[in-house]
Amino acid sequence: MEQQQDLLRYVLSLGDDALTLGHRLSEWASNGPFLEEDIALGNVALDYIGRARMFYGYASELTNGEKSEDDFAFLRGERDYINHLINELPRGDFAFTMARQLIVDIYSQLFMTQLLESNDPVLSAIAHKSIKETRYHLMRSKDWVIKLGDGTEESHQRMQTAFNDLWGYIPEIFEPDDTEQRLVAAGIAVDTSALKASFDAQLSRVLEEATLEVPADEWAVRGGRKGYHTEHLGHLLGVMQSVHRAYPGCEW
Amino acid sequence: MEQQQDLLRYVLSLGDDALTLGHRLSEWASNGPFLEEDIALGNVALDYIGRARMFYGYASELTNGEKSEDDFAFLRGERDYINHLINELPRGDFAFTMARQLIVDIYSQLFMTQLLESNDPVLSAIAHKSIKETRYHLMRSKDWVIKLGDGTEESHQRMQTAFNDLWGYIPEIFEPDDTEQRLVAAGIAVDTSALKASFDAQLSRVLEEATLEVPADEWAVRGGRKGYHTEHLGHLLGVMQSVHRAYPGCEW
Repeated sequence: MEQQQDLLRYVLSLGDDALTLGHRLSEWASNGPFLEEDIALGNVALDYIGRARMFYGYASELTNGEKSEDDFAFLRGERDYINHLINELPRGDFAFTMARQLIVDIYSQLFMTQLLESNDPVLSAIAHKSIKETRYHLMRSKDWVIKLGDGTEESHQRMQTAFNDLWGYIPEIFEPDDTEQRLVAAGIAVDTSALKASFDAQLSRVLEEATLEVPADEWAVRGGRKGYHTEHLGHLLGVMQSVHRAYPGCEW
Repeated sequence: MEQQQDLLRYVLSLGDDALTLGHRLSEWASNGPFLEEDIALGNVALDYIGRARMFYGYASELTNGEKSEDDFAFLRGERDYINHLINELPRGDFAFTMARQLIVDIYSQLFMTQLLESNDPVLSAIAHKSIKETRYHLMRSKDWVIKLGDGTEESHQRMQTAFNDLWGYIPEIFEPDDTEQRLVAAGIAVDTSALKASFDAQLSRVLEEATLEVPADEWAVRGGRKGYHTEHLGHLLGVMQSVHRAYPGCEW
């Protein structure tokens, strides 16, 4: 029973990661730097929103249908969301979006590769689907970080600023909370702390190729998995949930 | 009966102008350029939100209490709002906020001075209260436009850009729609078209003193009073209405 609750919480946290990031990416729609990239960002956004649906759909099953996907997405408040903070940060400029994307893509590839081995067959199946998308996302974000980091003076500076501003949001990702630790012991969840060394190595290699400096570990913000958020999540939810809140229970 | 409906619509439009602008100003809270100005912007925001409450309160009376202030503010969608578009534009940088403020303050002073003479005693009373605040707002926005326009190269450029970007939102304000025209004939509403010459003269004088150019009349956007809005109003309402939508009917 406790494990069932842990599992629900874990699945929701992964859904929240995907939905908040997907929403941020969707904010690029019609605002991309050029048409091809506009559409590409829209596709990545859709992948993440699709991933959120898979997790929320599973979460709904775990409640025996008492809660629906929409309940999880649209009827939970700020303190109920338990995403990692990095996913909720505003999209910023294109450099910021791509720097964040590189971070979450490297993480996601490592994470999903491990989640494939989960004892939980649904999680393993979601990982199977997600990992293919992630490989493609990572190729893209790596390309962009290198192109812009090793680009003009301005693009280099913007990329460096982006990584500096994102750096303190990384540690949280690799610090499994109690729920995760119990599920790791049960062979269900991924032990993210074990991914950190590989993550650091991969990220450093890309930064080096992009002629960017690895920022110093001077600060870190935590709390997402506990429901403590930046000021930005409230606004994100306000906008994202506005239609559903205005027309409660409406279906189409 | 038709006049009663016209009046309700008119009062709502004035409430919508005040609430959307008040909300935009409130977005400066904790983000002002320095503490004194942060607090000043908060006070101006409160004046506008207070003004919205007076109009919505009157609108509520006109429905015999069928609708409340909160219904008007929090339960109407984008197409129901009939504010002038200039009020819903994002706050932008400090120059943009102050340039808009100058425009609406000059307008507001002329408008409220006329509204004092309305045959409708409630509107006249609201004008009486608003005009005192407006005088103070106008002093401030004028000061800032001159200080920044006739300031550094960057502050000058930002101020000029702000007026260029705002220019096409001005004509709409001085084009009374059918409702307003009927109420003008009845001695209730202000004929805004009659205020344009004085508005232009005052605004030009400030721009000149601020060493800013009067932008060319190259474009204009209209539709606010018909419920056709910029892409920004939906986001504004999403955020502004999120608490009420999440806790429908909640009081405190």
